[in-house]
Amino acid sequence: MGAADETHDTDAASDAYRALLERSEKLTDVQMASMALGWDQRVMMPGGGTPARAGQLSTLSGLGHELLVDDEVGGWLEELDSVDLNERQAAVVRELRREYDRSAEVPAELVERLAAHQAETQQVWQEAKAADDFERFAPALEELIDLHRERAAAIDPDANPYRVLYEDSLPYLPLETVEGIFDELREGLVPLIETIEAGGRELPSPFRDPEYTYDEDDQMALSQEVVDLLGYPREHGRLDTAPHPFMSGNQFDARITTRFREHDPIDALMATIHEFGHASYQLGLPKEKYGNPLGASLSSGVHESQSRFWENHIGRTRAFWELFLPTMKAQFPHLEDVTVDEAYAAVNRIYPENLIRVEADELTYHLHIILRCEIDRAFVEGDLDVAEIPETWNGKMDDYLGVVPETDTDGCLQDTHWSYGFAAFQGYTVGSVLAAQLDAAIREDLDVDGLIREGEFEPLWEWMTEHVHRHGQRYPTEELIEVATGEPLTAEYFLEYVEPKYGELYDLENY
Amino acid sequence: MGAADETHDTDAASDAYRALLERSEKLTDVQMASMALGWDQRVMMPGGGTPARAGQLSTLSGLGHELLVDDEVGGWLEELDSVDLNERQAAVVRELRREYDRSAEVPAELVERLAAHQAETQQVWQEAKAADDFERFAPALEELIDLHRERAAAIDPDANPYRVLYEDSLPYLPLETVEGIFDELREGLVPLIETIEAGGRELPSPFRDPEYTYDEDDQMALSQEVVDLLGYPREHGRLDTAPHPFMSGNQFDARITTRFREHDPIDALMATIHEFGHASYQLGLPKEKYGNPLGASLSSGVHESQSRFWENHIGRTRAFWELFLPTMKAQFPHLEDVTVDEAYAAVNRIYPENLIRVEADELTYHLHIILRCEIDRAFVEGDLDVAEIPETWNGKMDDYLGVVPETDTDGCLQDTHWSYGFAAFQGYTVGSVLAAQLDAAIREDLDVDGLIREGEFEPLWEWMTEHVHRHGQRYPTEELIEVATGEPLTAEYFLEYVEPKYGELYDLENY
Repeated sequence: MGAADETHDTDAASDAYRALLERSEKLTDVQMASMALGWDQRVMMPGGGTPARAGQLSTLSGLGHELLVDDEVGGWLEELDSVDLNERQAAVVRELRREYDRSAEVPAELVERLAAHQAETQQVWQEAKAADDFERFAPALEELIDLHRERAAAIDPDANPYRVLYEDSLPYLPLETVEGIFDELREGLVPLIETIEAGGRELPSPFRDPEYTYDEDDQMALSQEVVDLLGYPREHGRLDTAPHPFMSGNQFDARITTRFREHDPIDALMATIHEFGHASYQLGLPKEKYGNPLGASLSSGVHESQSRFWENHIGRTRAFWELFLPTMKAQFPHLEDVTVDEAYAAVNRIYPENLIRVEADELTYHLHIILRCEIDRAFVEGDLDVAEIPETWNGKMDDYLGVVPETDTDGCLQDTHWSYGFAAFQGYTVGSVLAAQLDAAIREDLDVDGLIREGEFEPLWEWMTEHVHRHGQRYPTEELIEVATGEPLTAEYFLEYVEPKYGELYDLENY
Repeated sequence: MGAADETHDTDAASDAYRALLERSEKLTDVQMASMALGWDQRVMMPGGGTPARAGQLSTLSGLGHELLVDDEVGGWLEELDSVDLNERQAAVVRELRREYDRSAEVPAELVERLAAHQAETQQVWQEAKAADDFERFAPALEELIDLHRERAAAIDPDANPYRVLYEDSLPYLPLETVEGIFDELREGLVPLIETIEAGGRELPSPFRDPEYTYDEDDQMALSQEVVDLLGYPREHGRLDTAPHPFMSGNQFDARITTRFREHDPIDALMATIHEFGHASYQLGLPKEKYGNPLGASLSSGVHESQSRFWENHIGRTRAFWELFLPTMKAQFPHLEDVTVDEAYAAVNRIYPENLIRVEADELTYHLHIILRCEIDRAFVEGDLDVAEIPETWNGKMDDYLGVVPETDTDGCLQDTHWSYGFAAFQGYTVGSVLAAQLDAAIREDLDVDGLIREGEFEPLWEWMTEHVHRHGQRYPTEELIEVATGEPLTAEYFLEYVEPKYGELYDLENY
């Protein structure tokens, strides 16, 4: 699949194919320019720059939309229906057609109404969350649901609207598959968490210390050390701070951010490793395919599998702490007596009493996700009144985690997602499940723990590039998972990973 | 000229005027997005990001061009020929028509050939400069001249091509006016510099110290202190480092950079104040006119007048050093014995033996500029063969400054400008001359030295905003100078400023 083969592909293709590729490159340039301006806004821009930046982003978004829904694009796609394409060319056309269809079918005035209402709802949500006042949020949410239903109907009037919205972030992975996985997880995780709670065992927590303040510069130095160790190339990325950790960029320039808790350095460290995982995917995409679906990342679930693989299957292993604890002690000498077992336990502590998704541990996290997906499917499909959300939320928290928030601020108002859209939480859990499945597959080929202990991360990254990254959008998600792991997506590996791990950590019978 | 008046303007305007304004806003968004991406590339971007960023910038430049030369724009402009516009509307139309005409007349293929050749010439120039080999640069330069002549002929086939190119950066300020000013400067400065040299007096130089290394973080802290003192608002700007100091941005977000010399802190300090001056202009433009010529900065010469005003007429005054020397000593305690007189002399030292424009002092700087303008006018007009440039350069250096470079690297190859275009140096000298004229005008209204001594810079910035910034592109350069200072541009004030100043510093007779 070298350069000669690529050249042959292009030579054999029609003018329409070439024109489409050229348009895809322009569109990517505009999208990547917007992404870079978004990074700047969140990391570097002085606050007073907002009005001008908002105008720039809106104009670029409009120009990108025009480049995509142009009649010429529709014409090329139609022409390509009757052209004989090889498999990779067909993938390119499939992805661009999908993008075109999802945009061209939605009237511009609806796009504008939706964007304006999202901006307003975002504002209302912030106020409602601050005031713990769900009723203030409800009318805006109700209208947002209507607008998204309208958008879903424009894209596909015959389909279930929730399914259409779900396909925004997880195309080509049937909702039934994901909901089946959710069932398995709920059945496996609820009793496991109950058993842990019933055991009453408290794992050591030597890093978290309300008496000691971890200096931010020291924490930043440690985060930089960890990504240097994992192989994050400074020539193609940078680490900064931002209120919410995120990754932004492409195969040439993938930047990450982290943030610090003053009494707990693990939080920043795990966030940094997580974002490094996202960057590793971006940087593993083929450089020569920049601007083309074959050089773009796949769905949210696959992206999250990469961040979760590095965070959980590297960063939370005993082997990693054998390697990394001395570095941590060099940065924070007061930790000199902490043992590897204590460190390993500390980074894997379960907190079922925690109410907040973004602070959840590896087990309870999925119950937070499942609950949200059950609720947003119900209200989008009209089976749940918006007014019933708080009560439903609290009931499910009680069922799944045995804990009920005292306020909606710590309950159904905690996440920003519902001030933009719906059916977007599935990717988080799919990512964790897929990470475990990839971890099982990589362990067939490589001595993962041995490599971690040696600080040899390159073979791990290379394996992921070979099996996942280099394909870009060549395969739909479902197919990619089979190509990469030899099997369809399943919750089996995740449960097989967590049950013995937490069984040992919490000394549980029957696990 | 309040909001009501503005509303009235828009109400009274035709649909064509409104459409044109809307297009101007979009175009500004695209240009400002490119500028922000350029800032990122020079200040933040990891080096490996270049290929993707180059694509983004090229695509945005193409989209901007399409927005501008669109037939619709031509139609609106034509329609507006017969519409009765008020003075500010007429200014908006004048500026957009000018931008449209200069772009629409140049064939797209010539724009592309020129851009490609500029990129190549830039590369060749770097190699030729490194190798001190003008002959390597000559053929690329010759072709660049031809392409620019072709472009000038496309814009205006009847005009002198040098004049057309000159109007890229200094529209509405006749070349004759500028060349007249150059004559006055040459006549005034050459003998002044000769007299200084003949006197043989060496001013003290207590800051520059080959034995002492000024820490970069300390120098950065001092640069931040100086811009804080001048009133640079952190809400609307930021200070970073970059190899070449520059300002980038708009009225909401105007960022500056500086760089450090390890044995001389004055260099960074003056560069920082200079760039602050550029930012002060940008931030003084009316915010509500963002996206419209009335909210955009005028020509290069006016921009440079603002940077030079703050650098020379504030930063190099005795009053400023009375105020600032204690801050400098607090940052660098080894300077405790330096007096205000010594500091004042140090920042105003003349170095006629210096060969490099960007390191030149307030007097010799203009002879470096005049020499370049004389040479590039001669070769663009065909009066000088490219092969003769080195000899001509060295001859003029000898005539004006009494010093001849030993290499072309330190001579005619030193600046990057001629690897892009021509007739672009005039703005630097116009800026200094105008700064002196503005300084004379502001001193009619305000006790400048008294305000400086008190650290009260706000009235100075307000005066500049009132007289220069707030007008945006309402007046052509020539007219703005009269509006702001009550007189046409003249070299008189600059000479009246430098002659007594350097006469006193160097203890010269007849000055």
